[in-house]
Amino acid sequence: MTTPLPDSVLIREVGPRDGFQNEPERISTDDKVRLIDALARTGVPRIEVTSFVRADVVPQLSDADEVLSRVDIPDGVTTAVLVPNRRGLQAALAHRDTIDEVILFLSASESHNRHNVNRSVAESLQAITELLQVIADEGLRPIASISTSFGCPYEGHVDPERVYELAERLAEAGAQEVSFGDTTGMANPRQVAAFFADAFPRLPGVELNGHFHNTRGQGLANVLAALEAGVTSFDASFGELGGCPFPPGATGNIATEDLVSMLHEMGVATGVDLDALIAAGRDVQAVLGRPLGSHVLTAGPVIWNG
Amino acid sequence: MTTPLPDSVLIREVGPRDGFQNEPERISTDDKVRLIDALARTGVPRIEVTSFVRADVVPQLSDADEVLSRVDIPDGVTTAVLVPNRRGLQAALAHRDTIDEVILFLSASESHNRHNVNRSVAESLQAITELLQVIADEGLRPIASISTSFGCPYEGHVDPERVYELAERLAEAGAQEVSFGDTTGMANPRQVAAFFADAFPRLPGVELNGHFHNTRGQGLANVLAALEAGVTSFDASFGELGGCPFPPGATGNIATEDLVSMLHEMGVATGVDLDALIAAGRDVQAVLGRPLGSHVLTAGPVIWNG
Repeated sequence: MTTPLPDSVLIREVGPRDGFQNEPERISTDDKVRLIDALARTGVPRIEVTSFVRADVVPQLSDADEVLSRVDIPDGVTTAVLVPNRRGLQAALAHRDTIDEVILFLSASESHNRHNVNRSVAESLQAITELLQVIADEGLRPIASISTSFGCPYEGHVDPERVYELAERLAEAGAQEVSFGDTTGMANPRQVAAFFADAFPRLPGVELNGHFHNTRGQGLANVLAALEAGVTSFDASFGELGGCPFPPGATGNIATEDLVSMLHEMGVATGVDLDALIAAGRDVQAVLGRPLGSHVLTAGPVIWNG
Repeated sequence: MTTPLPDSVLIREVGPRDGFQNEPERISTDDKVRLIDALARTGVPRIEVTSFVRADVVPQLSDADEVLSRVDIPDGVTTAVLVPNRRGLQAALAHRDTIDEVILFLSASESHNRHNVNRSVAESLQAITELLQVIADEGLRPIASISTSFGCPYEGHVDPERVYELAERLAEAGAQEVSFGDTTGMANPRQVAAFFADAFPRLPGVELNGHFHNTRGQGLANVLAALEAGVTSFDASFGELGGCPFPPGATGNIATEDLVSMLHEMGVATGVDLDALIAAGRDVQAVLGRPLGSHVLTAGPVIWNG
C-alpha cells in the first residue's frame, strides 16, 4: 500500500432505509425508532433514516412520517431521507426541522432504471435535476445516488463514461454529493480504483461517496481500493442488512461493523463507538430473529482494539 | 491502486485439510475422496489434502492414509500434506508417490503454540528445522507455516520482528515456502502491506504465502493489500470452510470461490475454472447440510464473467 490512507472518513449508516426496506416482514415502528435512536448515539455522523415511497410499493417504509416524528437524533448527526419523486419530496419537507439531506436516485443502466422506477434514465435525470434545486432552495443538502455504477444485473458492464456524464449533469444541477452504488455487488477493486481516479478530476468540489455491496465478498476490498483513490465518504448498513437481495441468500450492503473495524484497525478515524454499534447490531439481529451477515457482529472486535 | 497487480497468482486449496479438520462431524472418506478429486480438476494448482495428526486429537482426519491411497490427482496438481511431528512425517512418507509438499507449522506467539501443540515456540522451531531437512532429503518440497503471524487471540499484538526471525530461521533450515497465517482473522490491510513490504527483502528466494481468514470480513481486503505488496501465493478454502471456528459462528479461511472471483475480475489469472469450483462448493455444502460462508457460492459469479 504505497498510497497514504486518509486520517478519517465519513460513514452514512443506511440500514434504517436500505436495510429495513428489503426485509420481507415489516419491522414495527417502535423497533425502528429504538434502533435509529441507538444508531444516532454510536457516533456515526450520518444516518439515512427512511424513504418517502408509495406504501403499496414499499410497505416496509410506510411509517416514514411516524418514524421521522418520533426519532430523537442528537445535534451533529446528519439525517437523510431518500425520495423517489416530487410527491415524496413534498412529504419529506413536512419534516424539514428533522432532516438535513435529501437523496434522489437513478440508475446508470437503462434496464435497471426501467425495472426500478419504470422510466428511462433521461426521464429520471430530468426529474431529478429539477428536484435538486428545490431541495437546495429549502435549505437542505441535495444528494444524488447513481445505482448500477459498477455493473448492472441485466446488462452486465456499465460504461464508466456514462456514469461520469450523469454525475456531471447532477453536479451541475446542484448535487453536493454523488453516491456511486455497486447495487448488486459486481465491482472489483481494480475497477473501483480506476473509476475514482478518473471521477475526481471530472467532479471538482463534489463529495464522492462509495456505496458498496458485499454480494461477492469484495465489499471491504472495494472500500480499500476507493480509500487509496481518495474516497473518504462511504455508505454502510449495520448487521449487513439490506441491498438488493437477489439471488436469495445473497448479502447486501457492506456491514457498518466490519467497515468501522477495518478502518479503526488501519488507524482511520470514523467517530463511531464500535461497541455501541455492535449493541445496535445485536438488537436488530434479535428483532429479525436470524443471524446477519456482519462478521464483526459475530466474531467481535479484534481484541487489542476492543 | 497505483501499484500494478501481478498477472497471475498460485492458490493452494486447503479445504480438505483446514476445512474438514474443523467440522464437528467427521466427513465420510467417500465424500472426501470425491470432493478432493473434483477440486483437483478445477484447475487449482495446489491442494492440501490431509494431515497426519493423532486420531484421538483430530478424529476428522484419521482416514489420512485411506484418503491418500484413494484420491486420483492429475499430473500438474501439487499435493500437500500437513504434519505436526516426526511420527506424522513418517506416516506421510509412506505416500511419497502421491505427495509433493509437506507443510510443518508453529505459531509466532508462545501462548497459541502452547495451546496448539503443548510446546514452546523454541521447541517447535528446533523440531521443525530438523524435519525440513528430512523432507528435502526425501525429494519433497518443505513448507513452513507460521500461525498467528498477524495477531494472537490470547496475546493480541504479535511483533512482526519475531515473525521475520522465525521465518529466517525456517528458510535457513530449508523451507522453500513460508506461509504467514492470520489464524483468527486479526490482520488489517495496512498491517498486511507493511508486513510484506519488510518481509520480502529479508527472505530472498523464499516463496511467501498469505493465509488469510475472513473472521472479520477483511479477508479479501487483506489479499488486495498483499497483492499490492507483491505476494502471489495464497491459501483459500472452498465454501469458506475451516479456520479456527472461535467464537461460534465465526467464519474461517477466505473462500476460494470469492478469491478466484475477485482475482479474475481484476484480470489476475489463477488457472481455476470458477464454475467447476462452485460445483465442488455446492457438493460440500450438500454434504455438510448447511449454508456456507462463501459469497460467490450463494450469489454466483458476476454475470459477464460467467
